[in-house]
Parts: sequence; C-alpha cells; structure tokens
Amino acid sequence: MILELFYWPQIQGRGEFVRLVLEDSGVDYVDVCRTSDGLDRLNRIMHGEGAPLMPFAPPFLRVDDLWLSHTAAITSFLGEKLGLAPLFPQEQLVARSVALTIADLVTEVHDTHHPITVERAYETQVEPAKLRAAAFRDYRMPQFLRYLERTIVRNDHTGGAGVLVGTEISYVDLSAFQVIEGLRLAFPRAFERISRELPRLIALHDRVGMRPRLASYLASERRLPFSEHDVFRHYPELDG
Amino acid sequence: MILELFYWPQIQGRGEFVRLVLEDSGVDYVDVCRTSDGLDRLNRIMHGEGAPLMPFAPPFLRVDDLWLSHTAAITSFLGEKLGLAPLFPQEQLVARSVALTIADLVTEVHDTHHPITVERAYETQVEPAKLRAAAFRDYRMPQFLRYLERTIVRNDHTGGAGVLVGTEISYVDLSAFQVIEGLRLAFPRAFERISRELPRLIALHDRVGMRPRLASYLASERRLPFSEHDVFRHYPELDG
Repeated sequence: MILELFYWPQIQGRGEFVRLVLEDSGVDYVDVCRTSDGLDRLNRIMHGEGAPLMPFAPPFLRVDDLWLSHTAAITSFLGEKLGLAPLFPQEQLVARSVALTIADLVTEVHDTHHPITVERAYETQVEPAKLRAAAFRDYRMPQFLRYLERTIVRNDHTGGAGVLVGTEISYVDLSAFQVIEGLRLAFPRAFERISRELPRLIALHDRVGMRPRLASYLASERRLPFSEHDVFRHYPELDG
Repeated sequence: MILELFYWPQIQGRGEFVRLVLEDSGVDYVDVCRTSDGLDRLNRIMHGEGAPLMPFAPPFLRVDDLWLSHTAAITSFLGEKLGLAPLFPQEQLVARSVALTIADLVTEVHDTHHPITVERAYETQVEPAKLRAAAFRDYRMPQFLRYLERTIVRNDHTGGAGVLVGTEISYVDLSAFQVIEGLRLAFPRAFERISRELPRLIALHDRVGMRPRLASYLASERRLPFSEHDVFRHYPELDG
C-alpha cells in the first residue's frame, strides 16, 4: 500500500492529527514534504498537476489510487481503514461528527491569533486578537471542551469506557489528545482553570499519550516541536 | 424512509445547503423545526436525549436509524444516497473535498460580521468586522472563488461539462450555487468585481438555478428569505 501524507514539513499544524493516526496504527507511510522533492510535489498537486485531486490546502493524503483532503475527512478515512475507528455504522458517524467538531475548534484556535487576516503577521492584529482570544477563553473553549467531556460521559452510559465513541480508543481520541496538547501550550492559564471540569477528557488524554507506538513517536524527532508558526502557539497576552 | 432535517427554522444558514440537496432530489423529508414540536426535539437531542448522536450544533440529519451532523458531511451523505453525486470513488472523494472547502468558506463569511465573538451582536464589533471583511473581499473570497473556477476548468479537461466534479450536476454544484447567492447578497460590489473572472462558475450557478425542482423550491414559501440573522447578510459598510 502506498500511503503518502502531504503537509508542511516544519509544523505540527493540522497535519499532526493525521500523523497521530498513522503513527499509532504502526502503518508504513511517507511524510512526503520531509523527503527531498516533497515540497515540489505538494506544490505541483496544489496547482492541479500529478493527482486526481487539486486540494484547496494541505493536508491531503494518497492511499494507493485514492486521494483526499481535509484533516477530519483524512483521519476518519484512515481510522476506518486502519482499525482505529468504531465498528458500527452509527458509531462511525458519531466519530466523524466529533472529528469535524474538533476541526471547527482548531479553526477557532487559529483565529485567536489571526482574527483579521491570515495574510499578515500576528503582530499586525494584536488588539483584535486579544478580544477574540478573550471570547475564546471565556466562552468557546469551555463550550467545546465541555461538549467533549459530556460526549465521554454519555458514551460511558451506553457501554463505553472513557472514550469519545465506541468501546476502544479511536482516531477521534487521538485528535482530542492533540487538541489538549495544543490548548495547554497556547492557553496554559485558561486551560488550567477549565481542566477541573474535564476529568474524563484529561484521563483520556493521558491514556492516549501512553499508548506504546504513540509514546515512542512523541519522544522521537519525527514529532516536530510547537512554534510560533503553528496553529497552536503561546502568546501570554492572549491567555488573559 | 424517514428523512428528518434538524435546523433553525427562521434562517437559510448552513441548513440551506442540506435543503437544496433534499429539494433537488425530490425526496420526501421533514424540516423538523418547522413542525409544531420540532424545536423541542432539536433541543432534547442537543442535550443528549432521543438520538444516538449528540451534535455540537445544527444542522443534523436522521436517515432511518442513522444520524449525522455537519453540513458538508450531510450533503455528501445525501448526495451519494440520492443520486446527486459522482459515481466513481475518487470523484466522490473530490466532491467531499470541495464540499468541505465550501464549508470553510462559509465559516469565513460568518466571521466577516462576527470577527470577535458569536456571543455578541454585529454592532459591538463593527470596526474589526470592517478589517476582516476587507481582507475577505480582497484576498480570501477571490482565492476561494478562483479555486472553484479552476476546479471546473480542470474537470472539463477530464470529461466534465461545466460542473465541479464528474459529468453531471452534483450536490457540490448546489452548494456552489448557494454560496454565490449568499456572496452576491452580502458583498454585491466585491462580488461584481470578481465575477468577471468566474465565467464557468456563474454559468454553473445559472444552470443549477434553472433545475425544475430547485427553481420550484426557490420560488416557494419553503425558501426562507435572507435576513440579518443569517450567515450571509448585507452590511454596506462591509462591502468596501
């Protein structure tokens, strides 16, 4: 099987949600842009050459002769193919819904430091960023995180065991892990405050981080560090 | 087949992308919140009662015993079930990618009038809205629309006929129609300027609007009017 991930080589970004599924599954894959002509290939495909898909933006994925884009669509596809998804159709739909909700959350995190335009640096939009970040910390972040906590509670009532969907850890639990890693980095004080309300979500995060293949990946050089070029980034003035 | 759409009853919003697929297909469906106890049912489900899915936000859909959320996921699902999607697996993946790209565009449209917080009215965030709207008009709207135009051109080269994916009008073409309706309303002057670069997209929009079932729907009372409570809304000061 040819399995190629196309994403920017210097950041975790949205591509990291895909990398976690690939790494946890143990499958062989190529992180294309970290090979010598990888960025050229990515750019050619973005311009409509060399693939049946012309994506609007990375990440995108090739699985043999199938190409697809968008973080949540990719993690759902891979999770279902690689045994990291619930088995039943309705549970798979719930997992896809949670994956898309997490993608929406990630977009809102991005906009805390770029509330006006992606075309200009954070430093040009600090004042509106402070306002947007305050609304995110006070309202949206709690709303999303409480939703994930409630989702675990509800799933436990129907036979789950501390996971978001189904009975075993799935790709959406890996995505929840990554969101918590990112929010802790970006908003350490605000996250600390809300975390008391999230015992199940925090416990799930910790379980995911101890999975052997994932722990090995997280400790490796393949796991890129967070930076101020990433979706999740720490500006103290945005943490209230 | 039980087919129930759950969405706010007063606005087109994101639910309209789903309504267009349902209406164009001619299938029988219930727009639940426009029935007497519909909003109560929606609210109960949002609180985790009465369905196997507890969505973060509307729209969500029931198809017999399957429940799913998120606009693009719903339109893809319905399109593929109701004969409004390309036939081949790779083309279905391309269509899903375009649907998710359009969903991203809609989110950015929303944020032109709510760049700081969804919790407070537009009137509390007019100044940052002007900045965000300017960046949207000058950069992001052209980027998304040119992408859709290029997608039609490229698809024509592989046997398409003026549609985004495949050979026939599909659910993503209906979504492109709705985006153009909305952008024309929200940013009439900016849209007029860019529209000269979009001959194929405009032609596709016009073809979609003339489809008999869709034209009948658009002329009916079921098609809600745009308003200042909607995702697409017209504030002259945001149109440059």
